[in-house]
Amino acid sequence: MDDTQIERRASRIKLLLMDCDGVLTDGRLWLTEEGDDQKSFNTKDGLGLSLWHRAGLQSGIISGRNSRAVTRRSQDLGIEFVRQGDPEKVEAFEQVLRLAGVDGNEVAFIGDDLTDIPLMKRVELAIAVADAAPETLAAAHYVTTARGGQGAVREAVELILKSQGRWSELIESYLK
Amino acid sequence: MDDTQIERRASRIKLLLMDCDGVLTDGRLWLTEEGDDQKSFNTKDGLGLSLWHRAGLQSGIISGRNSRAVTRRSQDLGIEFVRQGDPEKVEAFEQVLRLAGVDGNEVAFIGDDLTDIPLMKRVELAIAVADAAPETLAAAHYVTTARGGQGAVREAVELILKSQGRWSELIESYLK
Amino acid sequence: MDDTQIERRASRIKLLLMDCDGVLTDGRLWLTEEGDDQKSFNTKDGLGLSLWHRAGLQSGIISGRNSRAVTRRSQDLGIEFVRQGDPEKVEAFEQVLRLAGVDGNEVAFIGDDLTDIPLMKRVELAIAVADAAPETLAAAHYVTTARGGQGAVREAVELILKSQGRWSELIESYLK
Amino acid sequence: MDDTQIERRASRIKLLLMDCDGVLTDGRLWLTEEGDDQKSFNTKDGLGLSLWHRAGLQSGIISGRNSRAVTRRSQDLGIEFVRQGDPEKVEAFEQVLRLAGVDGNEVAFIGDDLTDIPLMKRVELAIAVADAAPETLAAAHYVTTARGGQGAVREAVELILKSQGRWSELIESYLK
Repeated sequence: MDDTQIERRASRIKLLLMDCDGVLTDGRLWLTEEGDDQKSFNTKDGLGLSLWHRAGLQSGIISGRNSRAVTRRSQDLGIEFVRQGDPEKVEAFEQVLRLAGVDGNEVAFIGDDLTDIPLMKRVELAIAVADAAPETLAAAHYVTTARGGQGAVREAVELILKSQGRWSELIESYLK
Repeated sequence: MDDTQIERRASRIKLLLMDCDGVLTDGRLWLTEEGDDQKSFNTKDGLGLSLWHRAGLQSGIISGRNSRAVTRRSQDLGIEFVRQGDPEKVEAFEQVLRLAGVDGNEVAFIGDDLTDIPLMKRVELAIAVADAAPETLAAAHYVTTARGGQGAVREAVELILKSQGRWSELIESYLK
Repeated sequence: MDDTQIERRASRIKLLLMDCDGVLTDGRLWLTEEGDDQKSFNTKDGLGLSLWHRAGLQSGIISGRNSRAVTRRSQDLGIEFVRQGDPEKVEAFEQVLRLAGVDGNEVAFIGDDLTDIPLMKRVELAIAVADAAPETLAAAHYVTTARGGQGAVREAVELILKSQGRWSELIESYLK
Repeated sequence: MDDTQIERRASRIKLLLMDCDGVLTDGRLWLTEEGDDQKSFNTKDGLGLSLWHRAGLQSGIISGRNSRAVTRRSQDLGIEFVRQGDPEKVEAFEQVLRLAGVDGNEVAFIGDDLTDIPLMKRVELAIAVADAAPETLAAAHYVTTARGGQGAVREAVELILKSQGRWSELIESYLK
């Protein structure tokens, strides 16, 4: 897809939805002997999402796996919508759209694997991380340069905010 | 070994056995001061194994090291056979084959180090991860592009399911 | 900026200030289900900071995020000034300068993201890690070869101590 | 140093001493909010050290940092000598040599940073990991292809056991 088309799609986005494992993380799950579950999140993604919310836009996570670490990270970052635990993600997706009061043509979704494709087919801007599964890459309008957990969400946030002419104003206070 | 031979071997597989450290993980063990033991697993491998089980096929882990993290991950993913704690793996391997009701010529094994070679010599399809020891690479029918813990198991699962003509049907529901 | 200018700026530094996430770490935050927060620090940075303090120079961390792990690491390494929890970092920066009794033209700051730029504009030597945000790279006098958490602080320490003619004497005891 | 000289030095080694952080690990320290300390060890190094001990040879760790994780890993692997907590390592080194009943010309040491150089100057075979500090690389007879924590110890073990004509016999049972 050419740059003009991607920019046009990006300019319409009001809600950014994301898979968690492999997108906000590098897909690794740390399991301990005591039944604890760890994931690693990226601070650059975190600042990107802060700017996103400061722009008055909404965000959400739709993850097939259940984890309190995701709940905590979402609260830290002000992510409004968090749906976890059902690998069949379409129902959760439709609930979130209703709650957010937006249509599929105002939504971007970032995914990395097969279970994300049904959502990617339902949104205005389907984004895959650089190390997504081949089928997921094929379903994307845009593929990030960064791998999951290494700034892919930050890259998507910048792409959309720039296409909406908001980026410069949002980071202005940092450049003085 | 040429592609046709690998495909022929792959088409016969009913049971996928795996080493854990260096195969389902990147070989790193996190040790804490308090005696806990962590490993990191890959979500793409996880989805691969879910598809594997959905295809009605069996799987197992034969690991020289003991870890409750492996037990937990196996339960999460529906891995039927888990044998841990004996670096001499042949006896555990033979028990698993009896329980699974399969012969060596219906089994694939994925390994990364010297202790895996005796099992690789006993199976129809011996797979080594990209960063396996030289002797282990030499004992393999097939070497994955991915390193251990970075999607090597997913790659093996896809190879086998495709050779059996099952892959397209298994992922069909995600592509709609 | 050419090497002579960087060296001239480096020769004046008495206080080294650093962001934490993405500079002393690779920017990853490990979150557990139980609300714990982990970061990974690099031992080469640690030895660099030990030499820095042995040279009679001062150091500090100014981080937008709150973490007891940072407090612990700072105590381990003898980092005098630690300010955490306010993403608007200028006030903390000015407090630290007063306490340390130095001017901005005696300070170096190492950053990786947008929130670090205001401090980089206020110091004699502004350093960005190799994988800093584009705007942060643009605000730097010097960009390290190493990425954050992979020796960037060590590299900055060596640059400054060498420009002050102190490096050889500080490591002399190790070379015998 | 040419291959023949390295092989000659390697053929004399009876005791393998190692730094821990940056050698047996990748140099990263995970700190938690609760004061716990984690390191990640590599299973390939682990199997290498098992073969080393099976060959009747001795091993030890001399680390400047104190950690119960190191104590645990040493017990797991049968590492006889563990000295931690003093960055000035020469005294610990000399104690270990006395206890092991060997001379410096029967010892190899693997290091990654400045504090390891004094020991590297006192041994028959001084080994640096691929990502060691420049001064440490300069002090080495041999530099491993692998970085610290990514198989550098395994590589050193193989080098020495092969030079002593022991490798084939030690791994023979795995190749059947």
